Amino acid sequence: MGKCYQDDSLALHTDLYEINMAKSYFKNNMHNRRAVFETFFRKMPFGGGYAVFAGLERVIDYLANFRFSETDLDYLYNVLGFEEEFIDYLKGVRFSGDVQSVVEGEIIFANEPIMRIDAPLLEGQLIETPLLNILNFHPLIATKASRIRLAVGADTLIEGENAPALMEFGSRRAHELDAALYGTRAAYIGGFDSTSNLRAGKIFGIPVSGTHAHALVQVYRNEYEAFKHYAETHKDCVFLVDTYNTLRSGVPNAIRVAKEMGDRINFIGIRLDSGKLQYLSKQARAMLDEAGFPNAKIFASNDLDEYSITDLKAQGAKIDGWGVGTKLITSYQQPALGAVYKLVSIEDENGNMVDTIKLSENPEKISTPGLKSVYRIANTMNGKWEGDYIAMENEKPNEEDHLKMFHPVHTHVSKYVTDFRATNIHQNIFAGGELIYKEPSIEQMRAYCLQNLQYLWDDYKIISKSDEDVSRPTEYPVDLSTECWQNKMHNIEETRREATRVMQTR
Amino acid sequence: MGKCYQDDSLALHTDLYEINMAKSYFKNNMHNRRAVFETFFRKMPFGGGYAVFAGLERVIDYLANFRFSETDLDYLYNVLGFEEEFIDYLKGVRFSGDVQSVVEGEIIFANEPIMRIDAPLLEGQLIETPLLNILNFHPLIATKASRIRLAVGADTLIEGENAPALMEFGSRRAHELDAALYGTRAAYIGGFDSTSNLRAGKIFGIPVSGTHAHALVQVYRNEYEAFKHYAETHKDCVFLVDTYNTLRSGVPNAIRVAKEMGDRINFIGIRLDSGKLQYLSKQARAMLDEAGFPNAKIFASNDLDEYSITDLKAQGAKIDGWGVGTKLITSYQQPALGAVYKLVSIEDENGNMVDTIKLSENPEKISTPGLKSVYRIANTMNGKWEGDYIAMENEKPNEEDHLKMFHPVHTHVSKYVTDFRATNIHQNIFAGGELIYKEPSIEQMRAYCLQNLQYLWDDYKIISKSDEDVSRPTEYPVDLSTECWQNKMHNIEETRREATRVMQTR
Repeated sequence: MGKCYQDDSLALHTDLYEINMAKSYFKNNMHNRRAVFETFFRKMPFGGGYAVFAGLERVIDYLANFRFSETDLDYLYNVLGFEEEFIDYLKGVRFSGDVQSVVEGEIIFANEPIMRIDAPLLEGQLIETPLLNILNFHPLIATKASRIRLAVGADTLIEGENAPALMEFGSRRAHELDAALYGTRAAYIGGFDSTSNLRAGKIFGIPVSGTHAHALVQVYRNEYEAFKHYAETHKDCVFLVDTYNTLRSGVPNAIRVAKEMGDRINFIGIRLDSGKLQYLSKQARAMLDEAGFPNAKIFASNDLDEYSITDLKAQGAKIDGWGVGTKLITSYQQPALGAVYKLVSIEDENGNMVDTIKLSENPEKISTPGLKSVYRIANTMNGKWEGDYIAMENEKPNEEDHLKMFHPVHTHVSKYVTDFRATNIHQNIFAGGELIYKEPSIEQMRAYCLQNLQYLWDDYKIISKSDEDVSRPTEYPVDLSTECWQNKMHNIEETRREATRVMQTR
Repeated sequence: MGKCYQDDSLALHTDLYEINMAKSYFKNNMHNRRAVFETFFRKMPFGGGYAVFAGLERVIDYLANFRFSETDLDYLYNVLGFEEEFIDYLKGVRFSGDVQSVVEGEIIFANEPIMRIDAPLLEGQLIETPLLNILNFHPLIATKASRIRLAVGADTLIEGENAPALMEFGSRRAHELDAALYGTRAAYIGGFDSTSNLRAGKIFGIPVSGTHAHALVQVYRNEYEAFKHYAETHKDCVFLVDTYNTLRSGVPNAIRVAKEMGDRINFIGIRLDSGKLQYLSKQARAMLDEAGFPNAKIFASNDLDEYSITDLKAQGAKIDGWGVGTKLITSYQQPALGAVYKLVSIEDENGNMVDTIKLSENPEKISTPGLKSVYRIANTMNGKWEGDYIAMENEKPNEEDHLKMFHPVHTHVSKYVTDFRATNIHQNIFAGGELIYKEPSIEQMRAYCLQNLQYLWDDYKIISKSDEDVSRPTEYPVDLSTECWQNKMHNIEETRREATRVMQTR
């Protein structure tokens, strides 16, 4: 490309304002003050009752390799005109902070910190943009994938076949290459069975699937010959039957080739990629059965998502396997999660940590200040989750014999919980810049996600596009401890008073 | 990351079915047959009247560097079980074909080929997925950017200030890192003035902009002090005024600091990032004027797009500069373009090129077969474009004294054009695998795009969310020549007959 610099590094993958602020901190000798930032999103994506976390390994890779390259510094100095003293300082900057995070495959909810960065102010500021760039994408796709998995059902492999039931097909529609690669990784963690993307298969070890496209039929200009040649060169066969006419040509040709090839191939089945899938799948099922292939499977694709899959199943469509592309990988229904990164505590001039808050006329947008921990409250009788509980760091909810949980905005909505176990959902990832977390395999992450869903009551797992409250998912409680809530109210008042005072002294 | 292979290459950034088909072609000794594929999209994005092309350089980079790495081949052989003979062949595969394409900044429309790949069948097949992965994203963002540019107005710099009027702020919401980097490049080509992303500034030479975030105010826990410290360390100042209370605290503190600093800073203005921007901008304008800062500018951000900008301008909001993030970089309104890649011609066993077609029960989804060229028909009297004209390669529309242009579906909608100039909108990019195209600078691409819009009648440039036809953009004519249309009809009939014949001989 027509590039101004030939090399690349990710340290400049950040907004100019981050480095402008970093410079102010540096000039005011505040750059090494301890600062704690939290990442969270404000609203459940897709109107759903839960979300799935993914993307931690990508964050780890980024932080572990954080450093400005020679050309990064050259650009800042020669093109943007930053001062030499500041550039010299940036040369030595590495990530030296602590990171606490939920792990990949964890179930997460709106308005709770999913990652906490505790680092020298300058570092915590510079990494904001790339962290959000990663954490606004991976969880969105993992969540969408989990919803689609629920719609399809839990079985990973189609009965009696070594064939995946839920395949990711979206690379061509993803937002550039990274989104295809990491999107399918997130989809796998969220519960998909395979990907079409070979690079993801190679790098992450995700199972790959796919047979042929319309182009194969066009190349031979004869559907029968195309299927036949494919069958002669591949053991496992799924024929795509809609290049010319699904029922009049595609399915009959698939059957003809399957009969002719007999045991020389493993005739897994056919794929439908257009038309009314309910009708076509039933007709195709009858034709396959009649031809003596009751075990041949029917795969479907074409702009599917959790809603159309649910509809097709309700319509009695005879579909065994699902290929999902565009609507998953672009998160078509809602392409942005809206995750933010907020400063909650900063070291003052005396070395004490003090709370910080962002006010807003919209109550949901006011941040929750202070050093906090997030606990998942599980009922010890049945293992189900009662809700999440955000407490100040010094609190010990496990030493309480009951917890008062109340809605952080509608505070009269409350309950008392006894017989509970409170588990901090954050794990320690980095300590003093050192990676101390051992990453599990992607298979383990995926299994962890599927397993977690068992602890969630069904009413949080409802998949619905309905506007009617009666059929929508219940809001999972993400509550503040009484101390945390009181601290927030105190900060709001103090900060408002201070802001007004400043104005009056003009 | 927990990676199965430590290195990476893009040759496997493709769908498994591409390589499965490649293997069939190879085994049948058809892999070197000449094949022509076209890329196009079927529907104008955002319900708009035009689109903007971008992404060619990324395609060039990919094709010029195409080769399987040792570990790619190891994965295919040892993990997926492809045969040694095929693997040996893949070792030597490079892109050796021809590419014709529209150039970046070109105005494009639905249902016309925007890129044509003429290559050995195996190569043309393998590159489908990554090409679509790129070409489904870059034009989408360039188009959205162009629409937002139209809504903002043509002036690049705010009058009297060296400040951009339209800034890209979306990195944190983009779908992973590539989308942030290449998305802002596409936005710049589409008409944006700057980006916040420093990596894009460094690599592509795009102007960068941004000052500070809410975090700065939170760090000092006092808005006045934050602004003051920022002003003491930066010449150019735009203060973000909504951390606590825009009108009661933010604007007064900005004015106070601007007065105290006087000529020591360049007080460019303030930025509003929440609330009702019409009201706040008018109030802030009055306060700035009254304080003696009539030239201070007001910038706005917060989920803006072409519609909200149009609304705010209609409401008389006093906004001079616009920062656009989420809605641009995720193409929130429509996150997928739906571009496809279709085989239109293939060399037969006798070395002749023959047409290929994809049928569908939906007439819009039937592909247009054959070797074709795309001409832009300009009126020589006023320079305006009359429409685009897809002709067979042997046709010479410039030698005609009139053209019959008719709608390819509603064929009775037609016109005769005289006094025209027909320009082939494709340029030669690769010939026999050699790059023969000299890429212009990104500034030139951007200027080309803005200049092109002058030749488009206003009714194609309408930005409207209305469902009412009277206020929607006109459909720009993308017509087939009579020969091309007749050839398509002939192919449809022949292929239908052939598909039926095959079925009857079962």
